[in-house]
Amino acid sequence: MANYGFIGSGLMGNPMAMNLIKAGHQLTVYNRDASKCQNLIEAGATQVSTPLEVVAAADVTFCMVADPEAAMAVCFSPHGVIQGVGPGKGYVDMSTVDPQTAEKIGISVQARGGEYLEAPVSGTVQPARDGELVIMAAGDEALLEKAQPGFDAMGKKTVFLGEIGAAASMKLTVNMMMGSMIAALSEGLTLAQASGLEGEALLDVLSAGALACPMFKGKGAAMLAENFTANFPLKHLQKDLRLAVQLGDHHRVPLANAAASNEMAKRGCQMGFADEDMCALIKTVQSPQKK
Amino acid sequence: MANYGFIGSGLMGNPMAMNLIKAGHQLTVYNRDASKCQNLIEAGATQVSTPLEVVAAADVTFCMVADPEAAMAVCFSPHGVIQGVGPGKGYVDMSTVDPQTAEKIGISVQARGGEYLEAPVSGTVQPARDGELVIMAAGDEALLEKAQPGFDAMGKKTVFLGEIGAAASMKLTVNMMMGSMIAALSEGLTLAQASGLEGEALLDVLSAGALACPMFKGKGAAMLAENFTANFPLKHLQKDLRLAVQLGDHHRVPLANAAASNEMAKRGCQMGFADEDMCALIKTVQSPQKK
Amino acid sequence: MANYGFIGSGLMGNPMAMNLIKAGHQLTVYNRDASKCQNLIEAGATQVSTPLEVVAAADVTFCMVADPEAAMAVCFSPHGVIQGVGPGKGYVDMSTVDPQTAEKIGISVQARGGEYLEAPVSGTVQPARDGELVIMAAGDEALLEKAQPGFDAMGKKTVFLGEIGAAASMKLTVNMMMGSMIAALSEGLTLAQASGLEGEALLDVLSAGALACPMFKGKGAAMLAENFTANFPLKHLQKDLRLAVQLGDHHRVPLANAAASNEMAKRGCQMGFADEDMCALIKTVQSPQKK
Amino acid sequence: MANYGFIGSGLMGNPMAMNLIKAGHQLTVYNRDASKCQNLIEAGATQVSTPLEVVAAADVTFCMVADPEAAMAVCFSPHGVIQGVGPGKGYVDMSTVDPQTAEKIGISVQARGGEYLEAPVSGTVQPARDGELVIMAAGDEALLEKAQPGFDAMGKKTVFLGEIGAAASMKLTVNMMMGSMIAALSEGLTLAQASGLEGEALLDVLSAGALACPMFKGKGAAMLAENFTANFPLKHLQKDLRLAVQLGDHHRVPLANAAASNEMAKRGCQMGFADEDMCALIKTVQSPQKK
Repeated sequence: MANYGFIGSGLMGNPMAMNLIKAGHQLTVYNRDASKCQNLIEAGATQVSTPLEVVAAADVTFCMVADPEAAMAVCFSPHGVIQGVGPGKGYVDMSTVDPQTAEKIGISVQARGGEYLEAPVSGTVQPARDGELVIMAAGDEALLEKAQPGFDAMGKKTVFLGEIGAAASMKLTVNMMMGSMIAALSEGLTLAQASGLEGEALLDVLSAGALACPMFKGKGAAMLAENFTANFPLKHLQKDLRLAVQLGDHHRVPLANAAASNEMAKRGCQMGFADEDMCALIKTVQSPQKK
Repeated sequence: MANYGFIGSGLMGNPMAMNLIKAGHQLTVYNRDASKCQNLIEAGATQVSTPLEVVAAADVTFCMVADPEAAMAVCFSPHGVIQGVGPGKGYVDMSTVDPQTAEKIGISVQARGGEYLEAPVSGTVQPARDGELVIMAAGDEALLEKAQPGFDAMGKKTVFLGEIGAAASMKLTVNMMMGSMIAALSEGLTLAQASGLEGEALLDVLSAGALACPMFKGKGAAMLAENFTANFPLKHLQKDLRLAVQLGDHHRVPLANAAASNEMAKRGCQMGFADEDMCALIKTVQSPQKK
Repeated sequence: MANYGFIGSGLMGNPMAMNLIKAGHQLTVYNRDASKCQNLIEAGATQVSTPLEVVAAADVTFCMVADPEAAMAVCFSPHGVIQGVGPGKGYVDMSTVDPQTAEKIGISVQARGGEYLEAPVSGTVQPARDGELVIMAAGDEALLEKAQPGFDAMGKKTVFLGEIGAAASMKLTVNMMMGSMIAALSEGLTLAQASGLEGEALLDVLSAGALACPMFKGKGAAMLAENFTANFPLKHLQKDLRLAVQLGDHHRVPLANAAASNEMAKRGCQMGFADEDMCALIKTVQSPQKK
Repeated sequence: MANYGFIGSGLMGNPMAMNLIKAGHQLTVYNRDASKCQNLIEAGATQVSTPLEVVAAADVTFCMVADPEAAMAVCFSPHGVIQGVGPGKGYVDMSTVDPQTAEKIGISVQARGGEYLEAPVSGTVQPARDGELVIMAAGDEALLEKAQPGFDAMGKKTVFLGEIGAAASMKLTVNMMMGSMIAALSEGLTLAQASGLEGEALLDVLSAGALACPMFKGKGAAMLAENFTANFPLKHLQKDLRLAVQLGDHHRVPLANAAASNEMAKRGCQMGFADEDMCALIKTVQSPQKK
């Protein structure tokens, strides 16, 4: 069994860390709000009070925090990750960040002799609990071997994508497509209902055909139930659409569909739904009288 | 076993009729180009020379032709369907038409005492062969019972949606979403490749997550192989997107995403890909130097 | 001076007819609601009670009604225009209609030996009052000569565009561009204000540069004053955008910008602004909290 | 007469500097490629070899370089502007930059006791030659008085907009609207021609109505003549559209129209027209067979 560390014990990080413990790995944990690690300690984890101490204690440290700013802070604060890495230490950042942030962190880790993987995931809270995440990894392939037992505990599939930045690009591409599909579902359900059809009937037809996917099932039901409790907040979807469109700008790839979805998501945030689930996007398509 | 008729023996109609024969039903067939019924005759069908004769011979007549114009011609030509329907006769139009056309045909059938179902399908050539279509039916519920054994031979699922026009609206809604998703896949694959990723890696990640659907698998592989042989031609996708956007105009539902996809599809047709498969849409996103 | 007729005495038609009278022409008038012709009668016009009587009394009859349905009714009702036209009679339809409607009317007039021009206008109520409309004419060039004195009284410029349908296409193209520009102005003013700038400062800068146009001045001021009294209702702008996008569909011209503007206009109608002026489009871009 | 400096002698900067000389001002000039200042020297300017020397010699220094990177280099290189500014020195950056860049430069100038204005312009080469630019200024209002004689020589109108960043936001807003209008003109001309109309007829109708603006006249003629020589390159338009959409992201203003135009511009760059004039955008709408 491996000697792992885990930084971040939020909605995603906590169940991921728990799956590492359940798989029998030795785990050192840190979270800014220490109280959120309580269940992990009870399950056998050792808690420390800085990211530096996690890295000092573990061979491979995983990190799952909310955004690029948090990922940078964890690394570059006075008692941060960078102070602790060096030869024989591996750092695996599973947070969703842009390619530039991934590169900054990776270069700094490598400059001190450490090994680095960016490893963002596809999947939200339930798959995190079930150990069913899809893990997109890129960076030092040598570290992949040491991290793999951990990935196997947290996810159902790991894809290795090459050099640093590749996993962030993949994650943005997937989330861009997710945004377009949430927009398509929002328009489809609203058009169906405006045409006199039952929304459930559309979901039923979709589930039987070539477009059937888990997201339509889950988010379609949530839209019809007007359950907008955030699983993945609309503002995060909009952020990913924005970053994907900018990636397209960088590579001169026209993205008319994603850009239209991005503006819909911006409209949704402007209307006050930023902190609701991404499926609140349907409210930008529905008649205001509807609500 | 039922006494059925079938009008139309094209790419879709021919295998659908064959599945009726295989299921043991008595079948009378008609196609404008009679030679295309040869395999059906060999399998036991009776061929006649006008739509009127099909309706005269059968209790329930199915029809599967290319577009609204053909569907209208089959019904309203001098020896057309309408001349033959009456009490005890059922007519099931499985072609993809707009709600207005469905209504015109339905009202004419009912005016002469016949029963009518519009029953467009989801699925293309392979599901038609495999008897795996999804059938969206609307109109006279009484006819549904008589048509159901036929539907069971041709499809894996039948959804009854209510009054005439409902199935056409459902079909347009589903195909609109298909158009948005083909656009999303086109943009996703192009962005991934421009970012230095393998297209196959994106399909791999998609297949493991919440967006996994049969279409991404099939059409994604076709896009990467640059195999644009028409299964469902781009011009038909564009036509359905146009009709869906017009349905949204009718009901005042804003459809920014579908409208953007529609313009991409128009661009593809303008570029010369109208008769290629809908997955040729990716060529409107890729660099022209790529090809 | 000519012997003219005028059908339609609405917001546009009434001042146009008045300008014909002021220019010294003999005028026979008809309006469905006869009371709206009162000021014209006082100014010297002769009022009759059917379109047929107008055509019978006049050499050239102008028509200005609200939409294609009204234009068709005026022509094809029992005592309509078509019953009265024949050799020596000219009919000039200045209503905004689609190319198909223009063609139906034109062919019917010509079939009875009459001459026909479609002549939609650019400009709304104020230019109609001032005789400053821009007239786009197409059809029988021989009729142009007889109608020109009338056009000179109602407009400041007449452009002859060729065969029937050409003027309708031109009108749709111009109004499509108008829709895109109203959308651009809506976005520009909202972005400026969100950035802390005064809306007036943007209008000021625009008025001094290459984008300066009368519409930005007029509609920009109306937007800032939140004066949405209909001069040209949003629903008419949306109708023209829809018809223009369909014209693009017909000719396979991709119109991403116009399509996006069309969906914005649909959203505006859905939000309840259909009968407000087209400049109410800005409310689809502004924060809902703003109002 | 004032003692001015000018940094940058490119397509825009050179005629602007010349207008300062013609108005009788004393002028010190610098350009990275010194040979481009030859005509200015012949007209009476003094040439120096670093930005620092310009600032040292002049009371107020104007700068007009290509992009944010160049504007930063001019200021922060070893012999750059910042080394020379201080009490009594004014610096006026007329380059088009984003609000963040304007702020960085402004704060650095002010930190050393100097005065700063950002003053981007509306107008391209011909207005620069004719002294007909529109100048959008923001920053230290005290400097405005000293710079005004220079602005009067270079432009026809100056608008003061408030604090640093305001002028950059205004410039982006105006150029965003310009992008939408170039897109609208591209679509309008292509739709008109596809409908059988003459492109010139559309320009003629536009010039007489509420949409009449100098840009439609100039760029419309260029599009019809297929004259794509860069006055304002498509890649610069795309850059400004991108920055404007990002500004909208920052302020949560949905910009569906501008976003659609941005993707059209990206497509144009991808097709190989990045260095052609922005009016080459029409080639993304036209049939590829057309060229």
